Amino acid sequence: MLLNSRAVRIEWGDCDPAGIVYYPRYFAFFDASTSALFERALGMTKHDYLRAYDFSGHPLVSTQSRFLIPTRFGDDVTIETTVAEFRRSSFDISHRLLKNGALAVQGFETRVWVQGDAVNGKMKGAPIPQDVIERLSK
Amino acid sequence: MLLNSRAVRIEWGDCDPAGIVYYPRYFAFFDASTSALFERALGMTKHDYLRAYDFSGHPLVSTQSRFLIPTRFGDDVTIETTVAEFRRSSFDISHRLLKNGALAVQGFETRVWVQGDAVNGKMKGAPIPQDVIERLSK
Amino acid sequence: MLLNSRAVRIEWGDCDPAGIVYYPRYFAFFDASTSALFERALGMTKHDYLRAYDFSGHPLVSTQSRFLIPTRFGDDVTIETTVAEFRRSSFDISHRLLKNGALAVQGFETRVWVQGDAVNGKMKGAPIPQDVIERLSK
Amino acid sequence: MLLNSRAVRIEWGDCDPAGIVYYPRYFAFFDASTSALFERALGMTKHDYLRAYDFSGHPLVSTQSRFLIPTRFGDDVTIETTVAEFRRSSFDISHRLLKNGALAVQGFETRVWVQGDAVNGKMKGAPIPQDVIERLSK
Repeated sequence: MLLNSRAVRIEWGDCDPAGIVYYPRYFAFFDASTSALFERALGMTKHDYLRAYDFSGHPLVSTQSRFLIPTRFGDDVTIETTVAEFRRSSFDISHRLLKNGALAVQGFETRVWVQGDAVNGKMKGAPIPQDVIERLSK
Repeated sequence: MLLNSRAVRIEWGDCDPAGIVYYPRYFAFFDASTSALFERALGMTKHDYLRAYDFSGHPLVSTQSRFLIPTRFGDDVTIETTVAEFRRSSFDISHRLLKNGALAVQGFETRVWVQGDAVNGKMKGAPIPQDVIERLSK
Repeated sequence: MLLNSRAVRIEWGDCDPAGIVYYPRYFAFFDASTSALFERALGMTKHDYLRAYDFSGHPLVSTQSRFLIPTRFGDDVTIETTVAEFRRSSFDISHRLLKNGALAVQGFETRVWVQGDAVNGKMKGAPIPQDVIERLSK
Repeated sequence: MLLNSRAVRIEWGDCDPAGIVYYPRYFAFFDASTSALFERALGMTKHDYLRAYDFSGHPLVSTQSRFLIPTRFGDDVTIETTVAEFRRSSFDISHRLLKNGALAVQGFETRVWVQGDAVNGKMKGAPIPQDVIERLSK
């Protein structure tokens, strides 16, 4: 599977009064990491791949995370992201956030490939295009 | 166990370009719900209970969530929060986010009661005071 | 002019490592306060008033803020919001965030009533409906 | 004056249901840009420069912004940041956010160099060290 690695600087504004990352921010980092993986595989931005493949997005069905080592502002971390498994219209993503080479946060997401309008409750799963599967599987 | 229920209005700024909640925001709602449960049980704000019980906070060890029904800006939802289990220095929290009475998002957190300075890596687990357990168990 | 007042609890997650509000959060509070003012005046949620008046939103042209008294997690503040002036397709909003009755943060926004699609660069100003002006002017 | 330029990718999660940046996120970008300017001038992270110069931070007294061109997810923008003026214990920062070379958002901040504990209301202005002024003035 294609693995995308990206560098993230932990900012002052990502941290809470304890001085460490306010954990919802990890999910913002992971969401951007999933987009970055798709962008690299498909060779275009999310704005463009939503159009090119005519779908509404890849929202989450479920997520699990483990927080092993705290990170604080000024830390430079690396997030490694890859697809763990494809199914017909859903897929699993694995994220590993590393600090100085050690696993600090682990994230696991199940997402679904959807079409239709989310706001009006007409969003539903659709088959993941074979081309997308192939490009993410390299 | 004590169960705290609170109303949350989903705001425009909580939502993404699909018009539904940007999922990291659910974790911000859940974190505030955990604090609200403690505040109700202990009869003081988080600012004050950190001092009264002389500890640094209750950061997450792990979390799991399931996203069942999308929510969008303008939705009024209810979050029900309770402790699922206490251990010596860690505990589990269950959140149920309801939209029109139906379960929309489920959250489950394992947190640890910590003392010491997070920023300097000297944060460590400490026994949860018996008084806190009793007040949250009512 | 109609003035809307709403209570906001400052949460742990709104604060930075100094323990006080991370200032971008004030703008999130103000944006929700502008929507709340419109919702009260028009008697429907933002989701519904965007449709009822067939427009795309009221994005900002400019904003100014003054930060007079810091607020921290556990503080309960009040935000008072009103229109300061209407023009043909733009208007000014004034926000006053009060802590224990004292002015803590002052916000001033110029917004424009827009139609069209923001993402594709076809968003443009449109006249504010007279009915909206009247309801906000009461 | 030293000018720091940094690249920012606008993410899906930075945008609202109109598909363009939710404007409080611009202030998060600007806050990180101010820190980046200081980090470059002082040759250490914010975590380290707070200790090296023994102060609590540089919170805002006021800010002004103009939003000229919308930005959307997938846009790569550049933020240019410099000190506009130094006074005894306060200073002004100018930010220019450029999209394809055109000025999209302009930000102007007045900040104060503070010492003491913000949470307990004992934070107060202190003279900006001459060494800091010199390094930022290069």
